[in-house]
Amino acid sequence: MNRSKGVTGPKGFKAAGVAAGIKESGAPDLTLVVNEGPGQAAAGVFTTNQVKAAPVLWTQQVIKERRLRAVVLNSGGANACTGPEGFQDTHATAEKVADVLGVGAIEIAVCSTGLIGERLPMDRVLTGVEKAAAGLADTDEAGLAAATAVMTTDSHPKQSHAAHAAGWSVGGFAKGAGMLAPNMATMLSVLTTDAVVDGDTLDAALREVTARTYDTLDVDGGTSTNDTVLVLASGASGVTPTKAELVEVLASVAGDLVKQLQGDAEGVTKEVAITVTGARTDADAIVVARTVAEDNLVKTALFGSDPNWGRIAMAVGRAAAEVDQFKLGITVNGVTLFADGHKAADRSEADLSGRDVTVEIALGLGEGTATVLTTDLSHGYVEENSAYSS
Amino acid sequence: MNRSKGVTGPKGFKAAGVAAGIKESGAPDLTLVVNEGPGQAAAGVFTTNQVKAAPVLWTQQVIKERRLRAVVLNSGGANACTGPEGFQDTHATAEKVADVLGVGAIEIAVCSTGLIGERLPMDRVLTGVEKAAAGLADTDEAGLAAATAVMTTDSHPKQSHAAHAAGWSVGGFAKGAGMLAPNMATMLSVLTTDAVVDGDTLDAALREVTARTYDTLDVDGGTSTNDTVLVLASGASGVTPTKAELVEVLASVAGDLVKQLQGDAEGVTKEVAITVTGARTDADAIVVARTVAEDNLVKTALFGSDPNWGRIAMAVGRAAAEVDQFKLGITVNGVTLFADGHKAADRSEADLSGRDVTVEIALGLGEGTATVLTTDLSHGYVEENSAYSS
Repeated sequence: MNRSKGVTGPKGFKAAGVAAGIKESGAPDLTLVVNEGPGQAAAGVFTTNQVKAAPVLWTQQVIKERRLRAVVLNSGGANACTGPEGFQDTHATAEKVADVLGVGAIEIAVCSTGLIGERLPMDRVLTGVEKAAAGLADTDEAGLAAATAVMTTDSHPKQSHAAHAAGWSVGGFAKGAGMLAPNMATMLSVLTTDAVVDGDTLDAALREVTARTYDTLDVDGGTSTNDTVLVLASGASGVTPTKAELVEVLASVAGDLVKQLQGDAEGVTKEVAITVTGARTDADAIVVARTVAEDNLVKTALFGSDPNWGRIAMAVGRAAAEVDQFKLGITVNGVTLFADGHKAADRSEADLSGRDVTVEIALGLGEGTATVLTTDLSHGYVEENSAYSS
Repeated sequence: MNRSKGVTGPKGFKAAGVAAGIKESGAPDLTLVVNEGPGQAAAGVFTTNQVKAAPVLWTQQVIKERRLRAVVLNSGGANACTGPEGFQDTHATAEKVADVLGVGAIEIAVCSTGLIGERLPMDRVLTGVEKAAAGLADTDEAGLAAATAVMTTDSHPKQSHAAHAAGWSVGGFAKGAGMLAPNMATMLSVLTTDAVVDGDTLDAALREVTARTYDTLDVDGGTSTNDTVLVLASGASGVTPTKAELVEVLASVAGDLVKQLQGDAEGVTKEVAITVTGARTDADAIVVARTVAEDNLVKTALFGSDPNWGRIAMAVGRAAAEVDQFKLGITVNGVTLFADGHKAADRSEADLSGRDVTVEIALGLGEGTATVLTTDLSHGYVEENSAYSS
């Protein structure tokens, strides 16, 4: 995994990230990723939130063709809850990108992120598109600029690149620090590959990968209105991998991006992996892991470096999944604190002073397993989310 | 409503609250409430958490008789996740109370609250029972002492009393400040009445009342392992109310206790009422209201006095209930900020500087309604729940 390259790592892609003036701060806020081909296969997965931003509604339509020439993304405004006018803004943005590239709007995906409920300053968006198009490049610098201009409360850009020995690679970036609980979708992320792959295979591979990577992250339960993951394939390497090879490399890049998202989550002081085993089904395991991951009493205890397994037991018990308290086991950082309905070791034996925490929950009922990545609930999280609108 | 009286307000009840030494601080930690009759009807509702404390397992059994002579409650330890030994401790406590009162253990309910996972110091519990029995009285002071000895992170005791013109009354106390999301049950609360009422009627009335009162409170989603509400009827007034009258007075006392619990929740700076209307069903309305009430991004915005309706829209959209973003309306403190899929007013028009906040969510789909009471997520909540085990 190489974090010095991103979406421009694979052959056939150009990108740019510019300051369009959407953000009052003057920080970069508009990204363009262009697939120069020869192939244009693409796939996407989107938020399960029923309140969907205009760019999600747009991109869900155009992705049905399994073909994209470019993705335009803006930070500084989510364009969510903005009515038909907001959808027209998205459409106008796609038309503008299509114009400058000399293609059709149906080949342009649009993503937005930022405050919900405000219209975008469209004059700035449209001139920003021109500025970005003029600066498109296939360099590492251009890939990093693209990863940078999508940031909101992120403290640093997140990108990753992985090459396959056969001569093709996958690159990508992601953004997201709060309102982060992808559910069969995710925050904003764009992946690129120069593998030769058709749209249907790419779609199937992406769904398999998101379930194993983006969907395992749950910082605050806040599945957002704008979650989007797109993958674009240029075919420029001339190499056709098997679907399994494609999934493997896509998953390695996506997994690395998710790890970076977790590490930069709002207020994070602990990076926590919650693994549930022995559930009646995998679905039950996910429900239990998510319930624990979203529990504020568990999260505040972790912030306090307190292996308070009683709170974990409480959260497990209130999950909408089958649980038997007399078969339950809880292991924190390798120390089993609770087993078979009894305290098994004093909590002081589990050392939570470090940044990484593992919580293993054994349900003893079946073969279902799941892992969810989360963070603690700190003063920093409260500060970031109460001091200003985001 | 009179908060200077509690469980000893109705005729036929004695109570005591003593320091048994269960808490290392030496604060009061053992409460006894005794029904002197002539009636002994009783009913209870309990946590829906699948991890249930030993006293819950015990009391769920004895309440099947719809008859209780006394309730013994301790703070300083939840006696949850303590295995068969913990259950034996609960049984021994009930036997001890039965002995000193000269009745059977099956007539004794037991409640515990405090840290999960530790055994109780049984020698102190048992001598505490003797001390409490020796101090039983029907005075206001005894009722207040009973309400005081159940406190954990509560900052003050919570009790209430309401008299019916026909000559009977209802009194009660409650405790709870965190891990507070009763769901067809609640934190610990004991209600008493001197009305003449049979056990089945009392049970039906209690279930109706808890659905309207305790169940509407959701501070942090943390349905606990020990939630218990009990009601004891002495019949000492000699008056037999209708079930509707009983429900009305029980609900007024329970509602007042819930308001006190909300106002004393961990870290609270805002007391928030979230009302959902126009849901397809009442069940859908509850799901939406709870999802918003438990959303950390909504709760931190409220702490920041920020009417960030976009976060409310996000939480509504991720609820497991039917929602149409183009019919959704959001009103905060009387100002409609979002209506029919559009921003309706600038967020600055809603003033959240005060302690009380109302959030009205109109779904526009049907007749389902629900109200959930919650609080904000503040630095105080994080501090209380990270700085020490509870």
